[in-house]
Amino acid sequence: MVHKRVAVLGAGSWGTALATVLADNGCNVMVWARRKELAEEIDQHHTNQKYLPNQILPASIHATHSLRDAVIDRDIILFVVPSQVVRTVAKEVCPYVKENAMILHASKGFELETYKRISEVLIEECVDWKERLAVISGPSHAEEVVRRSPTTVVVASESNQVAEEAQSVLMNSYFRVYTNPDLIGVEVGGALKNIIGLASGVAAGLDYGDNALAALMTRGLAEIARLGIQLGADPLTFVGLAGIGDLIATCTSQHSRNWRAGYLLGRGEELQQILTEMGMVVEGVKTTQAAYSLARKYQVEMPIADQLYSILFQKKHPKQAVSELMNRGRTNELDEIRGFRKS
Amino acid sequence: MVHKRVAVLGAGSWGTALATVLADNGCNVMVWARRKELAEEIDQHHTNQKYLPNQILPASIHATHSLRDAVIDRDIILFVVPSQVVRTVAKEVCPYVKENAMILHASKGFELETYKRISEVLIEECVDWKERLAVISGPSHAEEVVRRSPTTVVVASESNQVAEEAQSVLMNSYFRVYTNPDLIGVEVGGALKNIIGLASGVAAGLDYGDNALAALMTRGLAEIARLGIQLGADPLTFVGLAGIGDLIATCTSQHSRNWRAGYLLGRGEELQQILTEMGMVVEGVKTTQAAYSLARKYQVEMPIADQLYSILFQKKHPKQAVSELMNRGRTNELDEIRGFRKS
Repeated sequence: MVHKRVAVLGAGSWGTALATVLADNGCNVMVWARRKELAEEIDQHHTNQKYLPNQILPASIHATHSLRDAVIDRDIILFVVPSQVVRTVAKEVCPYVKENAMILHASKGFELETYKRISEVLIEECVDWKERLAVISGPSHAEEVVRRSPTTVVVASESNQVAEEAQSVLMNSYFRVYTNPDLIGVEVGGALKNIIGLASGVAAGLDYGDNALAALMTRGLAEIARLGIQLGADPLTFVGLAGIGDLIATCTSQHSRNWRAGYLLGRGEELQQILTEMGMVVEGVKTTQAAYSLARKYQVEMPIADQLYSILFQKKHPKQAVSELMNRGRTNELDEIRGFRKS
Repeated sequence: MVHKRVAVLGAGSWGTALATVLADNGCNVMVWARRKELAEEIDQHHTNQKYLPNQILPASIHATHSLRDAVIDRDIILFVVPSQVVRTVAKEVCPYVKENAMILHASKGFELETYKRISEVLIEECVDWKERLAVISGPSHAEEVVRRSPTTVVVASESNQVAEEAQSVLMNSYFRVYTNPDLIGVEVGGALKNIIGLASGVAAGLDYGDNALAALMTRGLAEIARLGIQLGADPLTFVGLAGIGDLIATCTSQHSRNWRAGYLLGRGEELQQILTEMGMVVEGVKTTQAAYSLARKYQVEMPIADQLYSILFQKKHPKQAVSELMNRGRTNELDEIRGFRKS
């Protein structure tokens, strides 16, 4: 058993769950929380009631609201902050991170406007991290991980050695870790699944059943893979845990913000009203914009993302969108998966 | 719109649902039911209360319990009988089927003991059918199809022309049909998904959550694909509707016999007791035996099927099986999907 000194940056549900795994594995864990009160609650009461209600965290987890104190002299820095905050946090900690520290992240999404992947953002802010960076992804509801329910994830890095080190630190009897050399595919899969999560909610809001949901996930995976391949991913990653695995966990859970926003859209509410009511960022809305732009840039056919874009930003009625998806030209499934267009 | 004369052999829920689609598309449909009373109920009352309660079927659907009357002078013969009955029915109708009739089937499974695919069985009984045979598969709960809820399926045939003809006859605004040239892959996917359906029930019986379920489906797909490829399938079929699509619909439904039997196993009941209580064939039990044998014959690694085999036939405790799956050696995900063994 390794006894690494780890900083977990971000005290949401997923950051706290990963801190728990690392503490179970004997690591010395310091969590950074933006809010001082939350840092104190985790450090002193070993709870995080807002994000993981009714759970007692391992007493060995410590917390601080000072970024500098969190990262100094740590062997591993794990970023689990929202994707739009990664750049700011990376810039701030870069000068304090130990020279050979391993850099992990578990954030899902693209940077707004630039459409850059999280690892690209991290490297831009601290070029030294390039050779020792890995991403964690896969089907993993935080609540279940904290209950020690069996969970599998992938750790992807361009460096096999970094991936295997991260695997050693994270893996245990309830948390099985696979390595994967395809950093791009794992990051793209994690970001784009939010689109299909949103679309699943729309289908439920329209009272469609499990046949439609399974079709949406299957055909959604095909278009995620088509775009991912253009962005440099290995096609096989999309049939793995960071692809179809995460997609399944996202689309079959009715607790995500994406699903909820989609459901209300399917029920006929308008986007602005939904976002105002929810008062939170809905990642899938931003990701749909990104996918719409990237699909055009790389000339990839993404019929589901396109229809969702029309529902979100052009007031298309969801029923009309589904009707257009169901009545496209007759196609050969394997040609479509391969990305051949039929004229 | 085509107006084909179609015989649907089998009046279970799926046969009746496909008859409804064909009737909606203007076909002249004759359903064959083994039981005379059921044939009369469908023919005269336009209902099938046992298999599709509270649904009114199109009045244009007719039914008979004479196999000969059902198939004579029909342009299309659609087999939807249980997989273990296909051979007998095929043998009986072969002499009466019109010379150029198209042969479709929508049965999922292997023949017991021989482990042959349904199309192989059909051709053995009527060699003339070889050139004009196709299979229908995909994520399609019959109850939803009869409610005209959006559904997608694939039609696979070695003949592109046959697949496209079947697509023309079946496709409409709520039933989207893709063609696929990979007959083997579509049949193998439809049969093997029952194993993972059974395993999903076991996981639920053990109180595991959505992380474990998503892992099971993802890793299950990988081993189904590994075996399928050895049997001659195209790997891409397994990321399509007859692969992951059908797997999702099967594993997320709690109404299947496979899921129910698995759930009781996970709760600690014994197989014989479960099968006696249920009083019905549980397809996944037979399919696990088939997969266990085929995996050895073709030297394919199938850790989930192997563990399920041990639970079913060697009294291994389900928790022990899960523990062994979670604690196998550390592996690289893409190597495993590709089927490389790590020594």
